[in-house]
Amino acid sequence: MSLTAFDSQITGLMFTDSKTSELFSDDAVIKAMVQVESALAAAEGACGVIPKEAAAAIEKTCARARIAPYRLAEGTAKDGVPVPALVKELRSQVDKDHARFVHWGATSQDIADTGLVLRLKAVLDLHESALTRLARTLGDLAQAHRNTPVAARTRTQQATPTSFGLKCAVWLSAILRHLDRLPGLRERLLTLSFGGAAGNLAALGDKATDVEAELAARLGLSISPAPWHVMRDSLDDYANWLTLVTGTLGKMAQDVMLMAQNEVAELKPGSGGGSSTMPNKVNPVGAEVLVALARQNAGLIATMHQAALHEHERSGSNWAIEWLTLPQMVLATGAALKEANTLASELVVRTENMRANIEASNGLLLAEAAMFALADHMPRPEAQEKVTKACRVVNETGQHLFDVLKDSYDLPIDWNGLKDPACHMGASDQMIDRVLESFQKLAEKA
Amino acid sequence: MSLTAFDSQITGLMFTDSKTSELFSDDAVIKAMVQVESALAAAEGACGVIPKEAAAAIEKTCARARIAPYRLAEGTAKDGVPVPALVKELRSQVDKDHARFVHWGATSQDIADTGLVLRLKAVLDLHESALTRLARTLGDLAQAHRNTPVAARTRTQQATPTSFGLKCAVWLSAILRHLDRLPGLRERLLTLSFGGAAGNLAALGDKATDVEAELAARLGLSISPAPWHVMRDSLDDYANWLTLVTGTLGKMAQDVMLMAQNEVAELKPGSGGGSSTMPNKVNPVGAEVLVALARQNAGLIATMHQAALHEHERSGSNWAIEWLTLPQMVLATGAALKEANTLASELVVRTENMRANIEASNGLLLAEAAMFALADHMPRPEAQEKVTKACRVVNETGQHLFDVLKDSYDLPIDWNGLKDPACHMGASDQMIDRVLESFQKLAEKA
Amino acid sequence: MSLTAFDSQITGLMFTDSKTSELFSDDAVIKAMVQVESALAAAEGACGVIPKEAAAAIEKTCARARIAPYRLAEGTAKDGVPVPALVKELRSQVDKDHARFVHWGATSQDIADTGLVLRLKAVLDLHESALTRLARTLGDLAQAHRNTPVAARTRTQQATPTSFGLKCAVWLSAILRHLDRLPGLRERLLTLSFGGAAGNLAALGDKATDVEAELAARLGLSISPAPWHVMRDSLDDYANWLTLVTGTLGKMAQDVMLMAQNEVAELKPGSGGGSSTMPNKVNPVGAEVLVALARQNAGLIATMHQAALHEHERSGSNWAIEWLTLPQMVLATGAALKEANTLASELVVRTENMRANIEASNGLLLAEAAMFALADHMPRPEAQEKVTKACRVVNETGQHLFDVLKDSYDLPIDWNGLKDPACHMGASDQMIDRVLESFQKLAEKA
Amino acid sequence: MSLTAFDSQITGLMFTDSKTSELFSDDAVIKAMVQVESALAAAEGACGVIPKEAAAAIEKTCARARIAPYRLAEGTAKDGVPVPALVKELRSQVDKDHARFVHWGATSQDIADTGLVLRLKAVLDLHESALTRLARTLGDLAQAHRNTPVAARTRTQQATPTSFGLKCAVWLSAILRHLDRLPGLRERLLTLSFGGAAGNLAALGDKATDVEAELAARLGLSISPAPWHVMRDSLDDYANWLTLVTGTLGKMAQDVMLMAQNEVAELKPGSGGGSSTMPNKVNPVGAEVLVALARQNAGLIATMHQAALHEHERSGSNWAIEWLTLPQMVLATGAALKEANTLASELVVRTENMRANIEASNGLLLAEAAMFALADHMPRPEAQEKVTKACRVVNETGQHLFDVLKDSYDLPIDWNGLKDPACHMGASDQMIDRVLESFQKLAEKA
Repeated sequence: MSLTAFDSQITGLMFTDSKTSELFSDDAVIKAMVQVESALAAAEGACGVIPKEAAAAIEKTCARARIAPYRLAEGTAKDGVPVPALVKELRSQVDKDHARFVHWGATSQDIADTGLVLRLKAVLDLHESALTRLARTLGDLAQAHRNTPVAARTRTQQATPTSFGLKCAVWLSAILRHLDRLPGLRERLLTLSFGGAAGNLAALGDKATDVEAELAARLGLSISPAPWHVMRDSLDDYANWLTLVTGTLGKMAQDVMLMAQNEVAELKPGSGGGSSTMPNKVNPVGAEVLVALARQNAGLIATMHQAALHEHERSGSNWAIEWLTLPQMVLATGAALKEANTLASELVVRTENMRANIEASNGLLLAEAAMFALADHMPRPEAQEKVTKACRVVNETGQHLFDVLKDSYDLPIDWNGLKDPACHMGASDQMIDRVLESFQKLAEKA
Repeated sequence: MSLTAFDSQITGLMFTDSKTSELFSDDAVIKAMVQVESALAAAEGACGVIPKEAAAAIEKTCARARIAPYRLAEGTAKDGVPVPALVKELRSQVDKDHARFVHWGATSQDIADTGLVLRLKAVLDLHESALTRLARTLGDLAQAHRNTPVAARTRTQQATPTSFGLKCAVWLSAILRHLDRLPGLRERLLTLSFGGAAGNLAALGDKATDVEAELAARLGLSISPAPWHVMRDSLDDYANWLTLVTGTLGKMAQDVMLMAQNEVAELKPGSGGGSSTMPNKVNPVGAEVLVALARQNAGLIATMHQAALHEHERSGSNWAIEWLTLPQMVLATGAALKEANTLASELVVRTENMRANIEASNGLLLAEAAMFALADHMPRPEAQEKVTKACRVVNETGQHLFDVLKDSYDLPIDWNGLKDPACHMGASDQMIDRVLESFQKLAEKA
Repeated sequence: MSLTAFDSQITGLMFTDSKTSELFSDDAVIKAMVQVESALAAAEGACGVIPKEAAAAIEKTCARARIAPYRLAEGTAKDGVPVPALVKELRSQVDKDHARFVHWGATSQDIADTGLVLRLKAVLDLHESALTRLARTLGDLAQAHRNTPVAARTRTQQATPTSFGLKCAVWLSAILRHLDRLPGLRERLLTLSFGGAAGNLAALGDKATDVEAELAARLGLSISPAPWHVMRDSLDDYANWLTLVTGTLGKMAQDVMLMAQNEVAELKPGSGGGSSTMPNKVNPVGAEVLVALARQNAGLIATMHQAALHEHERSGSNWAIEWLTLPQMVLATGAALKEANTLASELVVRTENMRANIEASNGLLLAEAAMFALADHMPRPEAQEKVTKACRVVNETGQHLFDVLKDSYDLPIDWNGLKDPACHMGASDQMIDRVLESFQKLAEKA
Repeated sequence: MSLTAFDSQITGLMFTDSKTSELFSDDAVIKAMVQVESALAAAEGACGVIPKEAAAAIEKTCARARIAPYRLAEGTAKDGVPVPALVKELRSQVDKDHARFVHWGATSQDIADTGLVLRLKAVLDLHESALTRLARTLGDLAQAHRNTPVAARTRTQQATPTSFGLKCAVWLSAILRHLDRLPGLRERLLTLSFGGAAGNLAALGDKATDVEAELAARLGLSISPAPWHVMRDSLDDYANWLTLVTGTLGKMAQDVMLMAQNEVAELKPGSGGGSSTMPNKVNPVGAEVLVALARQNAGLIATMHQAALHEHERSGSNWAIEWLTLPQMVLATGAALKEANTLASELVVRTENMRANIEASNGLLLAEAAMFALADHMPRPEAQEKVTKACRVVNETGQHLFDVLKDSYDLPIDWNGLKDPACHMGASDQMIDRVLESFQKLAEKA
């Protein structure tokens, strides 16, 4: 049945991307676990723990096994984990003499967690390339709009002019940090889960670490000094990374929405939803979804951390909490990356409105600049006082601040020249360069 | 696709109950919205806002409409809400002259939110009866085990004896409060959502409130003084109720798990999952699931509240957060009620182990009683000191505390009689009676 | 030391109100617990559980006890609860013969939780009256601005005109529901916590329920059928109510902030913070704080619910979580009510800008109205198509939508009359009346 | 006033450690901001942005400035940030000619965030050394108890024997990962916040990046390519690290509590709280606090992430959310590290009870081993079936499992030898070695 917004055929398209979804489908879940059982048999065959023929037979069965998800339903509900039912299915497909060697010495959690890690490995690649694509688009925007003045807004109010290119570079800077976090994250997360019933691989006798090494090598995973059945920090750290990513995308989307308000009209999402009764409206649906997904992940990360308190050597309840939580976080991140790429690449930048909004302030937006200009000629508190006074005149008369100041004080300041917002973009250029350079360096490392 | 643990064919059975699920399937979502569109047309026909024949035609179409969920997918992703696509489908099925009167004067949120409320109405009935059933089982346990001594445990340590029946009555007492919260909750939640594009029903002219009244009556819902498009407190309050319920069930399940530990062995869940490699194990899967669902809802409620800050007259992002969150909470509660009823009705109570655990303390568990007995004959600090000293002797010698005290102090106290834990259950009986009475009263009100 | 933003002398004023703070100071915490110990002794004296003279002596001591908070620090850290240290202090102040009767038969949780409830009782009164005051201000705004047109905004975009008075009434409607929730909440929350060591009042023998009744009466609290030491639903429900309240205030504040943006300029918070370098800026500090407090409570409520899983008869860890969480929620709500009252009462409404923003759309905001006007003369899809087309012309030419339509189609529609946004406020009037009436009814009930 | 559990003189000792607290006191907050203002003046003096004498005068004033926190209260509440009030205080203390150069070209957020980073730098050192100390203690326990058998428990039930040393090594393994995360975290977090009013340092003209470099050097911080005023990922990532740490400590504490239950009695916290009425009780207060702090941080991390959606160039509301949240997380982590070090170093290990609990199962705990032993001589399903059957006999007769199997099947298995749990600790030894080696490597890197 399709019950949650992710699975629903109605809303699923809105909250998922197809590639991430593929890795979290029931079939993918089963496939990854079968892959682990197969590699386990192979490793145990290679190490002489089970007969080589048994290993070969199991590998062969696993290679062609097609296990329908519903066949695991009852067993999963009874056992609280799908692996026993899966093992039963696999054993029924291996010929009788070798069936007993399926899952030899392993515990359910070894199979389920390692299967998850294998899928997360593929997800990380997917998401990294989506992030990189987004970084490229934002880099291009930063480059193209280096000299596009826009009102910086602080605490919801217009502050002073800045460069729209810098705004994009600021968004980009966080994305580069997310990419920079990946190597360490991968190193800790992409690790075999293998401990057997009690976490000490007792059932494998003196071949335990040999099998472990062989299994890890076959699956392309690293080895943890001690089993991580109950120490979930790497998984929680990954969930945090997902949340950092969606948070950044949500912040960007929120800026876009604010700038796309009718009265601001500085940005326009390329496409958007209509309204059944208001033909004039174009709703920023993609940006809204990004904000929603950011907040959803921000909520779910807490549940992941609450589940960190696994009891003893395995926790049925805390493990289940992860199942109820992590998939949504991964799906949400996939969807967010899809939406963000669309949003960024289709973004319409209305430079003329950006300038108009600055000009509508009659120079109030340049008050800081005015104050610093005056402060070259008088103590700063006096300069500040004069500007404050002049601002009041602007509000009453509608004159431009710089005209008021020019008329009031006879000082050698080029007030007209200062009127151009492009004069007030500070170190935007250098900052943009630095961000683009750090992107370059990251790309070279990869 | 089946992506989340709720929808997965593998784990779905574990985390859902079929009746709640039915009300959150895509088909149920569509059916409820169609019901609202139908009632809307009928109400508008009755009030003369649209032609009576149009109303009849729309009602007829709605009655037999079968709209496949996937047909709304693209429209939903584009519009950020399924209703425009749904309306388009309905209009295509109504004959051409009347099609335009489908959805007359309403906004998407009217239809979607009212549809949700209709389903929640049914869910509330379901969950109330499941809660009542559980209350009855716990009431029976409280009654049956009035005089079953068990060690009360505070701060994870054995404290003094209490009655297992009281333990059940304590669990029950919270469930009775949840039932008691329902009437107020229903009154505020089961309310028509109807405001039109801007929340003021402008498109309906002077017939607005007539249509509203008629529509509410037809759907069996009450009317809100002002539209609740952006004031989501009743929905959040309902989500809180769900969390209260799962929290109580999680607490009960956690107690069961603790009492089912091998070393405690006072309770046994009737059924449980096995282990593939450890034939001796019976895992308390149902109880684990209850703890997991409790913590999941406890996390999700935060996200619901974060979504309370709807902007202006409608928030695309915050509304989407609700879609991503509330269904899981409802499903989790349904599943938890199912699991809790199973757990409670199959619970095996090992009264002999309860008594044995008390006795294993050599009377240390009766230290409070000893202290109060002594305090009848000396100042309390002195009594406390004497008991503390005697406890040390118990720990060293393995004697019973009361024997130590009897030997040490010559006082007219019936130490032997006091040894029976059944003497130390205090007001358990009266408390159990009060809980059962309040259940009775609640039942009479209903 | 002052460590958190609530306690800091720097930021405390921003995040607290003095009256709520007074009830959560260390002194208030101690005073309430002393009050419970005093009433307990009195009740036990009255019921003959302890000597009448002892009761009198204890009451007398409690009445004048001044216990410095720091004196409880070490004991609290050692015992994990302040009560044993408090009892020790009290006993040292009562004369020797009676000292042992202090805290007779009670457990630490009885004292601490009942003390909390006594303080929450006062807090509820405080907050109710602050809410009522706010409701009155919003009611006045709704009344005064019944006929003030403002652009309704849905999904961050202008939709159609509505009444600013209705906007205020919508905010108010949620506040009225919060007030309406109070009686049920009070009934369940303002309950004596009294169970003794194991929750069965064993130490009080057959006088247990007599003492309980007497104690409850003396403290003005009701009695719970069974002790709520470990069933925390009423506390969590109260925390939820706090979150509902701050959520509503946060939503209102966010609307204000959005309407106070320079480009929108429809509202102005009466006061706000300046900027050290930008003399032109007035930051909506109060509104920002309201949003922050709303989101803070929305986060903390999850932690309260996570703490619902108290183990057995008393949970040291979950109880501690409540201590770490609930005070902040109460303080945040007090501060939010203070800020919201200031914000609402000082709100400057710029009706001319509201109208100007509507007009700036050249009638696009009236597209729904245009569509309904046309739909009287043609099928709705055709009407909708014509309006969509005309909207495009408006965007290109800057003409008014109604002029475009008048010129394009010869229909008996009073396009000029329809231009006035005041014609498009729908059922605002009736809705405002209904909200004000329900406020009236609530006031009469109280 | 002392309002929250952290600040309360009653409970503060329980939830804070003095060194972390010192860095979050009002005085420390002010001192760090003054240090930033001082370094800013010095850097601007060095770069010729302000007169050298002004710089010197400001540095001198800052060096001796003592600003009472309460003097910033009103300004902070008005401005929504303490910096303007702080700057006013500083200016009033600098002689008149130079006063205007205090805070030249900076924005409040530059000062407040950089001040925070300076304090976090010190906190990171503190917490790293506390973590290292804990790692050492756990390493010693792992070493000492390599060969101490204890029942592994999975899903709350006894599973098979394992080594208590491995249990400690597993706890340790996560702590080592937390230490391993620190370099990357420091690199991204310990970064100057410097952007001026709009984030582009416009007020500093062409000296902007020179001043930035000089300022960063003087404060020992690195430079961010673009200002992080609104991209809070490094702060959120740090908050996540805090949560990972407290999660690990909470898991360890929970294990300790479970193992310290009376019926299990395998561990004893060195000290614990008493009960006023139950002299026999020793409550595991430290462990309870660790669980509470873990869950508190797990809740607060969500709020930090919710605050990631800063609007535009500065968000008053989201910034305030961080102030309301992060200090508690840092304080909680400091307290948790203190408690965990005490808990670990005072832990009493009752090896005899560990062995007794294993033996009480009559070999059921060795069922997996029995199954693998039999499986050398027959198909595994048959072996499993035989063991399951034998387990039933054990439960009925109280015989040892291995005796039942020896009597039932004539196989060349040394059942008696297998009875020793020490034979069943698998690869514990190697795993412990690997963990200790990875600790060694980490220590060498540092």
